[in-house]
Amino acid sequence: MEKSIDRATCSVLRNAEKSGIRTVWERYSAQLPQCGFGETGLCCRHCMQGPCRISPFEDGPREGVCGATADVMVARGISRAVAAGTASHGGHAKHMARTLLRSAMGEAPDYPIKDEAKLQAVAARIGVSVDGRDAAAIAGDVARKALADFSEKDSPLTWAATTVTKGRVDTFLKFGVVPTGIDSAVSESMHRTTYGVDADPVNILLGAIQCALADYSACHMATDLADILFGTPSPVVTKANLGVLKRNAVNIALHGHNPLLSDIVAQVSGEPDMTEKAKAAGAPEGINVVGVCCTGNEVMMRHKIPMATSSVSQETVLLTGAVDAMVVDYQCIMPSLANIAECYHTKLITTMPIAKIPKALHIEFHEDDAKESARRIIEAAIEAYGKRDRDRVHIPDESSTAFAGFSTEAIVGALSLVNREDPLKPLIDNIVAGNIYGVCLFAGCNTVKVTQDANYTAMIKELAKKNVLILATGCASGAFARHGFMTPEATEQYAGPGLKAVLTAVGQAAGLGGPLPLVLHMGSCVDNSRAADVAVALANKLGVDLPMLPVVASAPEPVTEKAIAIGTWAVAAGLPTHLGVIPPVLGSKVVTEVLTSTAKDLFGGYFIVEPDPVKAAEKLITVLGERRRGLGLSA
Amino acid sequence: MEKSIDRATCSVLRNAEKSGIRTVWERYSAQLPQCGFGETGLCCRHCMQGPCRISPFEDGPREGVCGATADVMVARGISRAVAAGTASHGGHAKHMARTLLRSAMGEAPDYPIKDEAKLQAVAARIGVSVDGRDAAAIAGDVARKALADFSEKDSPLTWAATTVTKGRVDTFLKFGVVPTGIDSAVSESMHRTTYGVDADPVNILLGAIQCALADYSACHMATDLADILFGTPSPVVTKANLGVLKRNAVNIALHGHNPLLSDIVAQVSGEPDMTEKAKAAGAPEGINVVGVCCTGNEVMMRHKIPMATSSVSQETVLLTGAVDAMVVDYQCIMPSLANIAECYHTKLITTMPIAKIPKALHIEFHEDDAKESARRIIEAAIEAYGKRDRDRVHIPDESSTAFAGFSTEAIVGALSLVNREDPLKPLIDNIVAGNIYGVCLFAGCNTVKVTQDANYTAMIKELAKKNVLILATGCASGAFARHGFMTPEATEQYAGPGLKAVLTAVGQAAGLGGPLPLVLHMGSCVDNSRAADVAVALANKLGVDLPMLPVVASAPEPVTEKAIAIGTWAVAAGLPTHLGVIPPVLGSKVVTEVLTSTAKDLFGGYFIVEPDPVKAAEKLITVLGERRRGLGLSA
Repeated sequence: MEKSIDRATCSVLRNAEKSGIRTVWERYSAQLPQCGFGETGLCCRHCMQGPCRISPFEDGPREGVCGATADVMVARGISRAVAAGTASHGGHAKHMARTLLRSAMGEAPDYPIKDEAKLQAVAARIGVSVDGRDAAAIAGDVARKALADFSEKDSPLTWAATTVTKGRVDTFLKFGVVPTGIDSAVSESMHRTTYGVDADPVNILLGAIQCALADYSACHMATDLADILFGTPSPVVTKANLGVLKRNAVNIALHGHNPLLSDIVAQVSGEPDMTEKAKAAGAPEGINVVGVCCTGNEVMMRHKIPMATSSVSQETVLLTGAVDAMVVDYQCIMPSLANIAECYHTKLITTMPIAKIPKALHIEFHEDDAKESARRIIEAAIEAYGKRDRDRVHIPDESSTAFAGFSTEAIVGALSLVNREDPLKPLIDNIVAGNIYGVCLFAGCNTVKVTQDANYTAMIKELAKKNVLILATGCASGAFARHGFMTPEATEQYAGPGLKAVLTAVGQAAGLGGPLPLVLHMGSCVDNSRAADVAVALANKLGVDLPMLPVVASAPEPVTEKAIAIGTWAVAAGLPTHLGVIPPVLGSKVVTEVLTSTAKDLFGGYFIVEPDPVKAAEKLITVLGERRRGLGLSA
Repeated sequence: MEKSIDRATCSVLRNAEKSGIRTVWERYSAQLPQCGFGETGLCCRHCMQGPCRISPFEDGPREGVCGATADVMVARGISRAVAAGTASHGGHAKHMARTLLRSAMGEAPDYPIKDEAKLQAVAARIGVSVDGRDAAAIAGDVARKALADFSEKDSPLTWAATTVTKGRVDTFLKFGVVPTGIDSAVSESMHRTTYGVDADPVNILLGAIQCALADYSACHMATDLADILFGTPSPVVTKANLGVLKRNAVNIALHGHNPLLSDIVAQVSGEPDMTEKAKAAGAPEGINVVGVCCTGNEVMMRHKIPMATSSVSQETVLLTGAVDAMVVDYQCIMPSLANIAECYHTKLITTMPIAKIPKALHIEFHEDDAKESARRIIEAAIEAYGKRDRDRVHIPDESSTAFAGFSTEAIVGALSLVNREDPLKPLIDNIVAGNIYGVCLFAGCNTVKVTQDANYTAMIKELAKKNVLILATGCASGAFARHGFMTPEATEQYAGPGLKAVLTAVGQAAGLGGPLPLVLHMGSCVDNSRAADVAVALANKLGVDLPMLPVVASAPEPVTEKAIAIGTWAVAAGLPTHLGVIPPVLGSKVVTEVLTSTAKDLFGGYFIVEPDPVKAAEKLITVLGERRRGLGLSA
């Protein structure tokens, strides 16, 4: 299997191979063959009478020491993955809420309210009074309501109840999966999956869905609060791929997830004295900040900062030899980065108390003194620049233009240029007319198990030519950005005639002088909530619930427990959700059936597992057709 | 290896074998050999690029796909186990707090405040005003403070801060492990152990310790609130082992953990109309309620209900063919019980929404209507009695007397009969004089990996003859109760002369006409907090911190993730803590060293892993000697 279809990645990896530096691909090879029990979910380590394994064949044990069946083990495993994903997005959102509260209380001067309109919109939505109150007072109440969503209460989570359709609320009530606390949902999932608690696989899965809906709430909260503190994204044009690194600048790569760190570093890196210091250190082009993974998405949307790479290829940024500091917060940060940084002059800088890496430089980031923390980080990068071995620098001359920052507000804003009174009408009219066959949200990661980007690029071509409108978040965005799919040119090249006409009309109205890009970049992983908002707005406008809409989701290369959580809430939200990698469920017929079939009866959404990207696209198009017919539209 | 040294267990198992019914022992055999990667913690399934395994030998991979080392994998695994344990005790405690709140608000008429003295004591300790307020008002505030402990705040958990020594608070602050929320601690542990977050094994372990201290708080809260709602235990004399089942009564086995269910069933089973119904159904001896596992401990202490068995042998209760209903809530309930119940007339009744078992009868228990729920459960048992096959009933004629219910208050009460002014003085004087060499708390489970009860009985004999005072909780209590160690006779037979003299003096003063039992039964797993209270009282009285005390803990047969959480907080509390089964850490030298050695430097406590019970006892005696010498006492 090829490692990647991305030229920049391949070029750097060839170099690394020559230098004898191992990357994720070699580590993966060393793991092969992977444990079949683990791959199918048939392993349980939830008590010390184990580890237990269930044979997928007739000859081995059919139950663990406690009597847990294959169905129970697999359901427990998935449930814990959803819990971990929810805990991660919850940690991110809580971090944001606490900072917003401190901002409101005047304790975080580096975090002013940047987007008062968004603050007011969020406040109004969640029932915080805005009339005649100043931003700090409103923000304080919004933050307190956000923090209250973490602990269990007798009512649904505010961030769930106020952001979904009435139909979803009814469905969630009907199946007892209304989330009532983010941290408490994680805790309950961990409780019910411990030794001797829940042994009903379907009940365990319903618990996982409840937890996943808490994950949805956390994602939405993270998005809302990021917009309030840092601004709601609007379209920007920037670049993506390793070629955005500069030979004659101090290169700082921001990697991780939470804009609380990265946005401040981005801000401070633009201060004149920082540029001066960089120049004084011998970098004529000053400081060049680039993004990696979801942090890359956050700063790309709000600061036009180019994205170097994402996900599975994160090590390649360091392998260019041109990065002076990689600054990380949490999530998806390979521990191997420390070993690779060590092969160069690069400083790997950890910043969060819950995410340290041995051999990295730890500069703890404090919100009450954020810019000062950022300055220390940038100065460490400038210092490292002086030690860069210019003979080892290898920056591939590869980068693509990328239009980014299509927040829900930006999309509605663009549509309102076509129809000011009723912005969603052009979208709906075009769906009805068949110019837009349906909508597909691409999300998720890149995995070492699939040739990097291959699934994404194969799928988008199939879908686009069938006039499917493409949204993307997270590392799906990274993949599309690297390969030039976030450009008007891609629309010209790949979009079917109906889709092209629509994107062109909106693009013209928006003054682009051409079509919108083929992929609308909606942001980071937590910004899947933006895509949900678009779907909810469409459903409410049409007066139907989400499972009626011709909207699907796809994670062609999922990796993280967060992806499992997001996929699960997408299903609960009514979306047919494609996975290009088989999750660890095949050991249980019951779990596999519930996730791929029964879920459809209960929630309307369900998982479609299909490793072949062309077949996957065909399946999604078939599903969109079914949904169109369900609405009485041509298919 | 023998399955058990308990005659009743062995007798029933022989019978089961003849009938071809498989139990936990056969399932364990079928699992052998267990996966060596899992046993040593060298397996990670925290993302879909895995499962990854690290070879303990030179020839295999040294890191997972992401670059996680053996140290990271093992630390992550332990941290998630602690999180699951904390979530379990947290779920239990929260359930209790919510019920107390409803009791205070008049919404749970079956849960009156039973122990106002305990309510006042807890309220005073946690800073809730008691002066001139009625019990409901105080209880409401206590419950609200309890519920507030589940979500993250800027201050330490109330239930941690108000129950430990000043020295512990300082130590926890020093190492950044002060718990600030129970659910939030679980969530943070799950976040930091997901793909690409914490990669520093020591940092991960410090996180696990912080989470474990949240577990401690949850345990203590559960104990406090149970005492308020159901009464603080005081010594009772009852029986333990399968012989407590009755041939001519409706036998109801209560199994699980939370007294919210079991205490009500125990209460209602004593109502005359229930007895009449049982007799009318042909059971001349009416209703016979017996306990299993920690629920067994709860109802044993408060209702003198005999304990049928515990932990690994839970299936044997059903294998007597004499149980008409087994009623379960959550935790440690083997899913296999449903299959075994099916071989008989027995109704397995699940009661909690988060803990269902296919093929069991689910009668959901509602706190607002608790007695009515209990009646439905008992009536189902009475109905089942009519279907009992008397030819298949095999109740071993084995039971031991057991003195139970030595809460902290009961122990201090007994000591106050010796010295009313200064109840702890006799205990301290006798420790100083060497009549009591030290104190050992036995806790934990029985595991199928050790001949049932063998470790407990071997260890206690060694420790008792060296004059070590023995406390016990959870399924350690079950083991000692089955074998007659909770009797004055055991004191006569096994206690060294010093210990015997002390237990006799206190027993005489308490009007027992003989010594106290050799093992002081302190309750269920969550009641390990009672033992902690005794240690804290001793430390405060002596003016030293916990790591100075000649107090140790032992879990000779640990199984659950809860046991890992409890063991971890015991270590953080300064206790040398013995484990008789090797936890999944041997794959990491760093983790093994931190837990067994570095922890001593940081917290005073540390793990002692020793499968051989006689050697384990010797090691604990050596440790007690060191601690005695540290205090300037003879050793």
